[in-house]
Amino acid sequence: MAPSLEVYEKAAQTLPVKPVTTKAHGLTAVSSLEFEGSEKHDRVLKVFRAFIADLCQQFNGGHPGSAMGMAAIGVALYKYVMKYSPSNCNYFNRDRFVLSNGHACLWQYLFMHLVGVKSMTLEQLKSYHSEKLDSLCPGHPEIENEGVEVTTGPLGQGVANAVGLAMATKNLAATYNKPGHELVDNMTWVMIGDACLQEGVGLEAVSLAGHWKLNNLCIIYDNNSVTCDGTADVANSEDMNAKMRATGFNVHEILDGNSNVEAIAHALIAARASDKPTFINIHTTIGFGSNKAGDAKTHGAALGLDDVASIKTAAGLDANQHFQIPQDVYDFFSDVVPRGQAHEGDWEGRIQSYAEQYPEESDEFALRVQGKMPGDWTELIPRKEDLPTEPTATRKSAGLVGNPLGEKLKNFLIGTADLTPSCNVAYSQKVDFQSPELQTACGLNGNYSGRYIHYGIREHAMAAISNGLAAFNKGTFLPVTSSFFMFYLYAAPAVRMAALQGLQQIHIATHDSIGTGEDGPTHQPIALPALYRAMPNTLYIRPCDSEEVAGAFAAALSATETPTIISLSRQTLTQYPQYSSREGVAKGAYVFVERPADEFDVTLIGVGSEMGVTMETAALLEREHGVRARVVSFPCQRLFEQQSRDYKRSVLRPESGRPTVVIEAYAANGWERYADASFSMRRFGKSLPSKAAYDFFGFRSERMAPRIRELVDEVRQNGIGSLRGDFRDLNGPLGVGFEH
Amino acid sequence: MAPSLEVYEKAAQTLPVKPVTTKAHGLTAVSSLEFEGSEKHDRVLKVFRAFIADLCQQFNGGHPGSAMGMAAIGVALYKYVMKYSPSNCNYFNRDRFVLSNGHACLWQYLFMHLVGVKSMTLEQLKSYHSEKLDSLCPGHPEIENEGVEVTTGPLGQGVANAVGLAMATKNLAATYNKPGHELVDNMTWVMIGDACLQEGVGLEAVSLAGHWKLNNLCIIYDNNSVTCDGTADVANSEDMNAKMRATGFNVHEILDGNSNVEAIAHALIAARASDKPTFINIHTTIGFGSNKAGDAKTHGAALGLDDVASIKTAAGLDANQHFQIPQDVYDFFSDVVPRGQAHEGDWEGRIQSYAEQYPEESDEFALRVQGKMPGDWTELIPRKEDLPTEPTATRKSAGLVGNPLGEKLKNFLIGTADLTPSCNVAYSQKVDFQSPELQTACGLNGNYSGRYIHYGIREHAMAAISNGLAAFNKGTFLPVTSSFFMFYLYAAPAVRMAALQGLQQIHIATHDSIGTGEDGPTHQPIALPALYRAMPNTLYIRPCDSEEVAGAFAAALSATETPTIISLSRQTLTQYPQYSSREGVAKGAYVFVERPADEFDVTLIGVGSEMGVTMETAALLEREHGVRARVVSFPCQRLFEQQSRDYKRSVLRPESGRPTVVIEAYAANGWERYADASFSMRRFGKSLPSKAAYDFFGFRSERMAPRIRELVDEVRQNGIGSLRGDFRDLNGPLGVGFEH
Repeated sequence: MAPSLEVYEKAAQTLPVKPVTTKAHGLTAVSSLEFEGSEKHDRVLKVFRAFIADLCQQFNGGHPGSAMGMAAIGVALYKYVMKYSPSNCNYFNRDRFVLSNGHACLWQYLFMHLVGVKSMTLEQLKSYHSEKLDSLCPGHPEIENEGVEVTTGPLGQGVANAVGLAMATKNLAATYNKPGHELVDNMTWVMIGDACLQEGVGLEAVSLAGHWKLNNLCIIYDNNSVTCDGTADVANSEDMNAKMRATGFNVHEILDGNSNVEAIAHALIAARASDKPTFINIHTTIGFGSNKAGDAKTHGAALGLDDVASIKTAAGLDANQHFQIPQDVYDFFSDVVPRGQAHEGDWEGRIQSYAEQYPEESDEFALRVQGKMPGDWTELIPRKEDLPTEPTATRKSAGLVGNPLGEKLKNFLIGTADLTPSCNVAYSQKVDFQSPELQTACGLNGNYSGRYIHYGIREHAMAAISNGLAAFNKGTFLPVTSSFFMFYLYAAPAVRMAALQGLQQIHIATHDSIGTGEDGPTHQPIALPALYRAMPNTLYIRPCDSEEVAGAFAAALSATETPTIISLSRQTLTQYPQYSSREGVAKGAYVFVERPADEFDVTLIGVGSEMGVTMETAALLEREHGVRARVVSFPCQRLFEQQSRDYKRSVLRPESGRPTVVIEAYAANGWERYADASFSMRRFGKSLPSKAAYDFFGFRSERMAPRIRELVDEVRQNGIGSLRGDFRDLNGPLGVGFEH
Repeated sequence: MAPSLEVYEKAAQTLPVKPVTTKAHGLTAVSSLEFEGSEKHDRVLKVFRAFIADLCQQFNGGHPGSAMGMAAIGVALYKYVMKYSPSNCNYFNRDRFVLSNGHACLWQYLFMHLVGVKSMTLEQLKSYHSEKLDSLCPGHPEIENEGVEVTTGPLGQGVANAVGLAMATKNLAATYNKPGHELVDNMTWVMIGDACLQEGVGLEAVSLAGHWKLNNLCIIYDNNSVTCDGTADVANSEDMNAKMRATGFNVHEILDGNSNVEAIAHALIAARASDKPTFINIHTTIGFGSNKAGDAKTHGAALGLDDVASIKTAAGLDANQHFQIPQDVYDFFSDVVPRGQAHEGDWEGRIQSYAEQYPEESDEFALRVQGKMPGDWTELIPRKEDLPTEPTATRKSAGLVGNPLGEKLKNFLIGTADLTPSCNVAYSQKVDFQSPELQTACGLNGNYSGRYIHYGIREHAMAAISNGLAAFNKGTFLPVTSSFFMFYLYAAPAVRMAALQGLQQIHIATHDSIGTGEDGPTHQPIALPALYRAMPNTLYIRPCDSEEVAGAFAAALSATETPTIISLSRQTLTQYPQYSSREGVAKGAYVFVERPADEFDVTLIGVGSEMGVTMETAALLEREHGVRARVVSFPCQRLFEQQSRDYKRSVLRPESGRPTVVIEAYAANGWERYADASFSMRRFGKSLPSKAAYDFFGFRSERMAPRIRELVDEVRQNGIGSLRGDFRDLNGPLGVGFEH
């Protein structure tokens, strides 16, 4: 029976929490609040803890401490409060749950088993930390596995993902829900430990959650006061409740989090009815039940045979048996599956009645649920003949190509880390994603159906929140972010998590290379491309002109399980409509200027904003040095690696015995695979106007051409074999020591 | 005249601030509080703002807005409160000032000029955003230039640096000051905008400042309510004062920050007497004085000719003249140089009387001031014969080698991002760096002379704070950090800033490669080495055994203007005392197992924890395949690049026409410079026990040997030239699309 508001309020009076009882979300979202009683809870908690201790003991490792400490939280959540369906973990309107303290994954795995997630068998549980290749119980939760919303582990990421998940709900609800037709109204629950409130990415994300008044987000803080180094007060003295209130959260505190399932459940229910995001500070004891309870030693190691035996005995279990889950414990959770199926049925009913009343919106919504684009992007990308031919910065080209997509495609959620004027991602008629209550001083207001996101100066959270948006239901959203390329180093841990999880997203990274100029070396990325080119399942694309920008967007949209970084210039660039090709971009690299079979002396690889100086150098080589150069445009190494060997050889023509030289104002690392020599950056950049910076670092055709000619002469004389194992950094030798 | 406490308290009553008036730091730290009057201030502020507007107009760019808005803050700080010496910017006990909102650097440059920093001439000021190669006015402040404490620009870094600077003072003071002998008692002032309170690294750092009760730190918040996207409330709704109070700061608020120099000065003075770190929330107007005042447009663009002319007129200046600083404005600041010299003289007097009374401590302190090590590190590194020969994890070896250094050398400040039990950097008898008032629940207390730092789970701030420690006075401190290698991706923006600034530090990065095992792909760095190997002025060293760990520490200690990352295994590794060599590490790579001139078929490059399987493969190749392998150990690419061409060729022997194969469980990117083929990682890792993970990814001698033999056969048949432009990823082809 769902409790009436009155029953709930009465129950709440006996609790240490002060729940908000507005009807905003409807308390009836909870289908049962008939608690089974503390005796029963005690039994379940003891068996749960004994199983965790037992499991970690089997391989003498793992993370038993927090899994045991969080047991009562799990019972409140999985048994009483969370709206989900164990027999169909992917049902669209389910509450999302994120275990941001991912090392406690055994806790989640065991609850999934207990509530009846079919794939999570007892055998699977035992495979935790084993050599089983198809284990569903890896050392941290992984998105591929049933019932896991996002891969977590690197701390702070999960809480930011949860903010994205809650935004996704808000956006869908504001876009599709109609009065009396709540298609999407799920909550997002995120479990955190101390780390997620220490890590910057978590702090950035909670600031945004507060700003956006994401009242469908609940952060559950497992406050066990212990971290690896001892007690958490070794490195933290904050008044966390006050801090979270100042950040815009409603705050509840539960002092007896080890056993008071009812108190926890009521606080969780209050979160459903909150006008703000909710922070529940739950005091627990790490390793509760162990004789080392409260000690950091229970965090990342097994407890020891004797301790485990006594934990089992205390639970009324046989100390000598392993992995015991008595039937009454299964019975305790047996109502969860049918309740979940009822949730599903209820939702399907809503879908049907919506379809009858709003057929058009319903069709679009159905596409979104299927993860399909609500429109044909291929028709929205401008044709080559519609692109500018006058010198244009690729950041501007990206606006020309990308903004019609953003405007027309409702799955695009486009954001910026406070660089709207610089990154050109604000499409016409944009509406901001904001709480409708917000009135900004500059009049830039919005609502939850808005799809333009002001992330503030928070690049890391921007990318991590985007991961949550993309993970809500793969394909339902396509998050786009924007900042200067340099600051994608701040965002890198989250971009990596997108790549690891196969989440599509597009990062518009402007002001790349040293062409950003006066801002100086702090803003000039030198090593960053090496990271993104090496990162698995990541496309780092540097287009050289507007046509290649179109190709970059097409590649990014085609890569449905991959994040793409489109790397763009601040400065204007010559357009090469006669040479550049979006189809070429799709292949990663292609011949820009070809020469017949033997009629060339060198291949020049031009990349992104350095294509201009590459083409100038090719011309100068021919005009003044009698050196004939082919030119290859090479916007994306990873796409090129996916091509056939024949194609690759047709582009680079290694059999010719002619040298290949790459020209790019970044560290050369990785280009050695394709070239014999480079003009590249051997040190950090310099604060100079864009063109002066290029000049200073030797990216001038008059300087480069003679050196290339020398290389060509050397090869003519000694053969191409003489370059083997002798990659040439034609900008000069590496300085020793402090190089910048 | 220094104000008496009574005078100060009386003055304070008229101010909006509520200063704390304990005598902790002594108000006499301020040598003059005879204000020159608001009329004079008004004149100076107007001229200052006109100059900024004029300067940005000359090249039609720059950041005039915040520089103009912060003018009154600058007058309070540079004229009245800050203890420094313009004629000797490096005087040791100076107050440190950090412009964390580095884009406002013109503000700092102009104040430096006005107070009499000799190198900051009018000509230099005009070189801002110009093509002048030796400009002292780059687009963001750079540490190389006189009067700049740290390079800033990437937002949030500066405030973390400031925390490090304040810690440095605390540690030196607690170590060397004696009753009545205050050798070190400087303040650290850090100017921030909105961004530094949004960026995660800034938030991590302020949490630590509060925890450590760094009452010698004052954060000055230029609260102009404007960011690039409009008003700051577009992306932030926090109660910042409440949040900072909850974080452990004393908070002051100044409502009239555009003109009330006196109020600002008093709040700054109160910070000197605070029992906690101080946060001064100063409301200002961006572009104050301009007709676009308060508009985001004044942030990053010139104001326009008419506006600039009227700003000049309002200042009583000639609208048609440029760069006008009337003599009376210089006169206003003319007491700063002599006052600074008095500060210096006072300090030198203290040094002398200290030397008389505490000769031993004085000698050591003198070394620290000179940036010299207080001890001989070469004697502290264990000899080869004292290192273990049984299988040992390199993280353990690093403890054996590094901890005696940490114990004996007082300049070492060793920290961990909450991984004390895992990283083995806790030396014996360590004392924690903590506020002496702190009582932790686990009894891990300390004081400010402690040199072991619990950073909490804040990798980014750990590295950024280390930059501040290292920048306090180069060589006075050698910061050491520790975490899992994977989380140096979180820290990467700060490690990069260390490299850019030439700051020595050592990062102990454990759990590298896929050998970290069960924690799974989230914890297994695949692409990260590509970043650090490409990053200028950074040593990324992967030792293969204890002897190479000794070499890695020696290299890190020798690199006095370079950050070093020592990359270490979680798992035990075979030791190779008969082959490994610390001298070899110093050269980046060296021959591990040599073969006579023509008596080899292949060179295998083994790296770090993959040396074991490399050696096994070499043995198997000989035993079962008749293939003779040389083995090269290659712990550091950058050190190798610094060697002579002859040395490099003697290691790799490219002229031999034999293939070279690198074996490393990371992305191959960058190894193509040295090798023809690799066994490497083409996708993210997997949660498996360490050995099973290596097996799964094919790092087994039985699997690798046949493939190497095939390669050798191919080269025998077709010649080495056949490998040109055809780098072999011997682990198999790259999957298309979502690869992990």
